[in-house]
Amino acid sequence: MTRIIDISWPISSTMTSYKNNKPVIFTQTRTIETGGMRETNIIINTHTGTHVDAPSHKLTAGKTIDQLPLESLIGPAVVIDLSHINEAITEQDLQPHTINAGEIVLLKTKNSQFAPDAPFVVDFVYLAASGVAFLIKLNVKAVGIDYLGIERNSPNHETHTMLLAQEMPIIEGLRLDHVTAGRYECICLPIPVIGLEAAPARAILKDFSK
Amino acid sequence: MTRIIDISWPISSTMTSYKNNKPVIFTQTRTIETGGMRETNIIINTHTGTHVDAPSHKLTAGKTIDQLPLESLIGPAVVIDLSHINEAITEQDLQPHTINAGEIVLLKTKNSQFAPDAPFVVDFVYLAASGVAFLIKLNVKAVGIDYLGIERNSPNHETHTMLLAQEMPIIEGLRLDHVTAGRYECICLPIPVIGLEAAPARAILKDFSK
Repeated sequence: MTRIIDISWPISSTMTSYKNNKPVIFTQTRTIETGGMRETNIIINTHTGTHVDAPSHKLTAGKTIDQLPLESLIGPAVVIDLSHINEAITEQDLQPHTINAGEIVLLKTKNSQFAPDAPFVVDFVYLAASGVAFLIKLNVKAVGIDYLGIERNSPNHETHTMLLAQEMPIIEGLRLDHVTAGRYECICLPIPVIGLEAAPARAILKDFSK
Repeated sequence: MTRIIDISWPISSTMTSYKNNKPVIFTQTRTIETGGMRETNIIINTHTGTHVDAPSHKLTAGKTIDQLPLESLIGPAVVIDLSHINEAITEQDLQPHTINAGEIVLLKTKNSQFAPDAPFVVDFVYLAASGVAFLIKLNVKAVGIDYLGIERNSPNHETHTMLLAQEMPIIEGLRLDHVTAGRYECICLPIPVIGLEAAPARAILKDFSK
């Protein structure tokens, strides 16, 4: 049987949040004791944990999350191990790897080694503009990274803008420490919020190698 | 190429909510004009739209959504057309259909014909206790239905209790009007909230027949 690997960030009130300012709040609204069943209300920012950015995150007339074809988040994927990098992932870092057109590219970095409820790390490893340009040239389908952002120190959000202008979804907040570099099927399913620029998602890999 | 069919309920502030009392609220917290990017806060009940009920929804010591193996929500599925039924789905209604052990059983009813933002319909088609007992006897993996509840007029929540006692996840709030009865692969991925009794999910079918 195919092995399923969960690569999603656990969602809780103590989880890491972007710049520590987007806390998740769970409020129990019904209990088994008094209401016969448990129910909970959730307050959550669209950019919490594992989530997908749609073009309208950055582009005024860009597509919203419900307008993105699900096919762009499902399919052959390659997990690339870049755990040796301390700062930015550049074209030079990606060049030695085999990356095919149409693949979902998942960047595994030392970010995955941070605990899921550690305070936000400002100097996380990110994807530099040269790395983005390289992936766009290769015509990949989507790009994912293992932190709550894919770029930093970038006032114009170049990385986001370049990817989203191509309508390539960005998957942020993956957890890849337990995943070996290699080829998988990726299935990343954001909740179907209408008209929003992003959505929390559950992402898995199917491992056909075993 | 395999066709992907989205069977999820669109999430919006105008969508149908259970007994009309669990509205979703979207609040834009950042704009492109003043903040360079769009961001949104979401208030959402765990039992909104397409969602998965875990055992702890009804059972005091039951597993929470993060403790459910994802394998129980992924795999061979059968969509059964029960659109002729007006009230309850009983054992008798299910008997004529071929249902295999280990399958995810998705019940397509006239509920799927309600608009996704129609007021809550009290007399939706539901799964009666005899139908549940039959599915449990067949040893199916999970059960899904196309409304925000799977039972009604049931003070002891028999349907929920019987399924959840078997650790069979319940998928509520599916949209199946556009799906032909038959066999598919189902992939239903709830967001990974820790310690909660349910979670919003995105659910798809893969159609291998084309």
